[in-house]
Amino acid sequence: MIKIIANNYIKADKVEEFIRLAKGLVENTRAKDAGCIRYELLQDIKNPQILTMVEEWEDQESLNGHANSSHFKEVMAATADFSEKPAELHICRTIL
Amino acid sequence: MIKIIANNYIKADKVEEFIRLAKGLVENTRAKDAGCIRYELLQDIKNPQILTMVEEWEDQESLNGHANSSHFKEVMAATADFSEKPAELHICRTIL
Repeated sequence: MIKIIANNYIKADKVEEFIRLAKGLVENTRAKDAGCIRYELLQDIKNPQILTMVEEWEDQESLNGHANSSHFKEVMAATADFSEKPAELHICRTIL
Repeated sequence: MIKIIANNYIKADKVEEFIRLAKGLVENTRAKDAGCIRYELLQDIKNPQILTMVEEWEDQESLNGHANSSHFKEVMAATADFSEKPAELHICRTIL
């Protein structure tokens, strides 16, 4: 299993649109991507510009399928200039 | 429901001991703390010094109970000087 925590730091005036696009990505990912165990969008309640995707994938192959999907690529392209600072991508293993 | 992503940035020579203590915290929390839905320790595979606790709590009361528990306070005290830089605590709401 592969776990991912992706922290996005979104410009204040782009938060609403990012959420709209990211919600579509969540729906598509859950519906279409094989091996997707968890795909969830969270928002930091103290800093609403921090939007975090928490993901769990069965294996690397499933993750690769997602990364190459049109729904993922489209949202990445559409939100390319929404970031205030670069996203942080934590690919994790479970300790316990 | 309250979701928390707590990123810890641990000194290289303290990672092993931090994991040992944090695993004990995970076990105690899961066993003893009411309202704990999820309490999981993850490690960034590219940077093993980043150790993240992913938590889900039924409500603020459950979270407060945990924060006031002896097993939590003991581990916080024992690991107080393990950090390379301050931890990041993201208290989150679920968007989708």
